[in-house]
Amino acid sequence: MKTAKKFFCLEGIDGCGKSTQLKRLAEFLIGKGFDVLTIREPGGSEISENIRKLLLDIRYKGVMDSRTELLLYNAARAQVIAEKIAPALEQGKIVLADRFAWSTLAYQGYGRQIDPQMVLELSKITCGNYNPDLTIVLDVSLEESRRRQAGDNRVADRLESEAVSFFERVRNGYLKIANEFSDCVSLVDANGDPDTIQDQIRQLILQKLV
Amino acid sequence: MKTAKKFFCLEGIDGCGKSTQLKRLAEFLIGKGFDVLTIREPGGSEISENIRKLLLDIRYKGVMDSRTELLLYNAARAQVIAEKIAPALEQGKIVLADRFAWSTLAYQGYGRQIDPQMVLELSKITCGNYNPDLTIVLDVSLEESRRRQAGDNRVADRLESEAVSFFERVRNGYLKIANEFSDCVSLVDANGDPDTIQDQIRQLILQKLV
Repeated sequence: MKTAKKFFCLEGIDGCGKSTQLKRLAEFLIGKGFDVLTIREPGGSEISENIRKLLLDIRYKGVMDSRTELLLYNAARAQVIAEKIAPALEQGKIVLADRFAWSTLAYQGYGRQIDPQMVLELSKITCGNYNPDLTIVLDVSLEESRRRQAGDNRVADRLESEAVSFFERVRNGYLKIANEFSDCVSLVDANGDPDTIQDQIRQLILQKLV
Repeated sequence: MKTAKKFFCLEGIDGCGKSTQLKRLAEFLIGKGFDVLTIREPGGSEISENIRKLLLDIRYKGVMDSRTELLLYNAARAQVIAEKIAPALEQGKIVLADRFAWSTLAYQGYGRQIDPQMVLELSKITCGNYNPDLTIVLDVSLEESRRRQAGDNRVADRLESEAVSFFERVRNGYLKIANEFSDCVSLVDANGDPDTIQDQIRQLILQKLV
């Protein structure tokens, strides 16, 4: 088994295809002989999943304060780092995360309009040295995102039921992040063909593994 | 009804008598014609109580990361501020808190040995301008604290089942806080007679109300 101790993350608004792309990326890396741990943010441990339940409870819409939300996302993340990410990297695995700290900056910072500087400070407290070596933001238009999600017949949770303007701020937030932190965040246009997108993702990841 | 817009807090290790003293203080202030809101940290709202349940769950002993714990206390506090404290002060009430942010510095900072500077930074993010006008630390010896709690026949929760050395660090942490932040934190020796202690508390509070 090859060891790598690398931490990668896919980010983007819902419907950008990151979960599907992450699954294919994991299979590709396992096929290359790497040991891979895939985690979903903000869950991945029993404690974090319980925090996630609080965060997504539709009953709390309009009641949960935006700072509470911000702190809960960070609490779930601290636990996932301690229980999952740190031990996996220690064992020489590649960690693939479906969302991580940039989600909080995009959704709570830019989406909820909490001071981005405060969000970044809080991330430093939560993550310490556990930051992705590379984050890939899959960028899709709001229209494409809505179209893809219309296929699901689920009831929208508290976050998903936000207004369109909120998701526009989140998408633009991701674009700002990719621009400002280009040393560790890459942008991929995810409106097109899934195979082409997967190829672009693999290329970016492989560059970090050689 | 007199209005005051003041925020006071009693702090100290378990068994220091703060809950009893706070109840008597509330009755005293109500008798003086003030409108008083008493809150218990970290609860006081449905969301915060649910966070509290996670925090005190004995199943998570040794599993919950100290940063997760720190962030969850702050999340519960942010929600109590938004739902309870801010509106009450806005209405001209006196808010009396059974524990607030100094508990986190004492327990997580000094007790769990998380960098106190980090704990203070996080408190700033969580509390913003909502900090007690005066905090009174009720100081008791560990022996006295244990003696008083031996009366309860409850099963210890996750925090209460910590080692004696932990509670010693917490108590010393409170002493440091009272020393370092003497402009807004007063120390009261709480080993003695409850009536004398209540008198001292009332004197300190009344000085802030004239």
